[in-house]
Amino acid sequence: MSDPHLPLSTAAFSEVGAPSLADIEAAAARIRPHAVVTPLLESIVINEMTGGRILFKAEVLQVAGSFKFRGACNRLLQLTPAQKAAGVVAFSSGNHALATSAVAKLLGVKATIIMPADAPKTKVEGARDNGATVRLYDRHTEDREAIGAEIARATGAVTVPPYDDLYVMTGQATVGLEIMQALARMDIVPDAVLAACSGGGLVGGVASAVRAMSAATQVYAVEPSEFDELARSLASGKRERNPAEARSICDALQVVTPGALTFPVNQRLLAGSLAVTDDEVREAMRAAFRHLKLVVEPGGAVGLAAVLSGKLDVKGKTVVVVLSGGNVDADFFAQVLSA
Amino acid sequence: MSDPHLPLSTAAFSEVGAPSLADIEAAAARIRPHAVVTPLLESIVINEMTGGRILFKAEVLQVAGSFKFRGACNRLLQLTPAQKAAGVVAFSSGNHALATSAVAKLLGVKATIIMPADAPKTKVEGARDNGATVRLYDRHTEDREAIGAEIARATGAVTVPPYDDLYVMTGQATVGLEIMQALARMDIVPDAVLAACSGGGLVGGVASAVRAMSAATQVYAVEPSEFDELARSLASGKRERNPAEARSICDALQVVTPGALTFPVNQRLLAGSLAVTDDEVREAMRAAFRHLKLVVEPGGAVGLAAVLSGKLDVKGKTVVVVLSGGNVDADFFAQVLSA
Repeated sequence: MSDPHLPLSTAAFSEVGAPSLADIEAAAARIRPHAVVTPLLESIVINEMTGGRILFKAEVLQVAGSFKFRGACNRLLQLTPAQKAAGVVAFSSGNHALATSAVAKLLGVKATIIMPADAPKTKVEGARDNGATVRLYDRHTEDREAIGAEIARATGAVTVPPYDDLYVMTGQATVGLEIMQALARMDIVPDAVLAACSGGGLVGGVASAVRAMSAATQVYAVEPSEFDELARSLASGKRERNPAEARSICDALQVVTPGALTFPVNQRLLAGSLAVTDDEVREAMRAAFRHLKLVVEPGGAVGLAAVLSGKLDVKGKTVVVVLSGGNVDADFFAQVLSA
Repeated sequence: MSDPHLPLSTAAFSEVGAPSLADIEAAAARIRPHAVVTPLLESIVINEMTGGRILFKAEVLQVAGSFKFRGACNRLLQLTPAQKAAGVVAFSSGNHALATSAVAKLLGVKATIIMPADAPKTKVEGARDNGATVRLYDRHTEDREAIGAEIARATGAVTVPPYDDLYVMTGQATVGLEIMQALARMDIVPDAVLAACSGGGLVGGVASAVRAMSAATQVYAVEPSEFDELARSLASGKRERNPAEARSICDALQVVTPGALTFPVNQRLLAGSLAVTDDEVREAMRAAFRHLKLVVEPGGAVGLAAVLSGKLDVKGKTVVVVLSGGNVDADFFAQVLSA
């Protein structure tokens, strides 16, 4: 990790493969006709509870219910006509499936999506409703990347990876760009920005935009405590793996190891990675329901969970929390509310 | 009701006591430092379900969780120093209580709120959390206006009525102003705008703004079928009453009779009033959960219910639906999701 207060040169970004601010701005312009510039929301009650000023980037309001639409949109809009005709294949824990199938539908591109058999129903059904062919796999015994590669080989389809892809990371980075643009209009420089981490495309992209615009702003990843591969990888300096027996209610954040492209970016740009328990996530989902009137899925609520459980000292600080997705089954959400 | 396609003169507004566009713009400027300019949201799935283009004005994201903040804010910001010192008293089914207490807290004004004993817990607790003194009454046997008048007399507090007040209606009208301003930036003139109706301040205010800016746009009230006083009043030409035994899950929309100030406005400016059942409202709450990722309370979901249940033909049309509030108890919301 670099000293977060050191000014960052353009070279600091390019040497770790982070998207440049110019590329992020180009992606923002590219996806603008399709994507939502999501609002920054605030709750007086949550501010009082935490002692800070907490602003929420509501990516649950994005098309297809998560930030993933941005990366998929940025990737698919750059397909050649021949690639469009061949279609796309994506492997995904759910949100990238919904996003890729939604963009494919918009652009008239055939999509095959490889999803874990235990993904939330709303995600599997949503991808099918978008016209995608869904191939289910066992999260614990099958290798989704191998299945994807086989389908790509057999059909000529272009693989749209969920995070280890510069187009995709650059698309996710537009979340960070919009945060800083909105805050600039309010004359605010945030002390910190928090984003969920699975493969690291969102937080790496957000860090690329935020730290290019304000080197003084610290960007933190937030992970489920059972899937804290990034925290351990940042500590050891190499890509650590999660044990096969790890479990979490955060279905969107169950990665095996940090991305090959995203890890160097996160290693260079992040101030650290915070871990939250399932119970802290449930509490955050209830707080978002009550105080923000937003439906946030477990993986989308980890940033709020980190703030509410005091994993980061936010007293007197201005902190932006990305609420990254809202695709959660009704019966599970009801269960969380009733607890 | 006037012919909705007839151009409306300024006189048409002033003769029924509707707020003028200049007054609405002044209110918008007045409340801007405190209120949220709520986003207009859209769901590809809901568009496909209805065959129209449905845009949602997300007032659930307003401060204190409903549009009511606007009216209360516009009223309290115009108190004299002596009135501020004396405090305010409001009677409310809940959202006006939350809003008035939130504004009072912001401005350092003492608030007493008269609320029905069967109001949702989240509303009563929220008003108390905002520092208000809450006086509960029986919705079916006590007269809240008389209680409010007695408190005002005893304490010198200024009454902030929930709808029958030009300051309040003008504040609610800023919802309509923002809708038309946002649509103008998208080069859209809406065919229709739908807003919930209880006392009629929201829909009357919205109609005042919308029809001043586009006489061709039809504005509809939406009511619970058991509390369809406005539909019956529009038909008979006089303020009809709801029977004492009427019940609905829409706790926010249980008024006895249309407002004295609001009814002439609604009579002149509305294209009609649509009625929806409790089951249609529950279905709309589930649709908002799934497709918009928003927590919408029963009374806030009636417009979406009207669209989803085909009470208005929206095929090929652009229709704006105000999602007016999101203050709903977690256990009730869970019950709706699980049904």
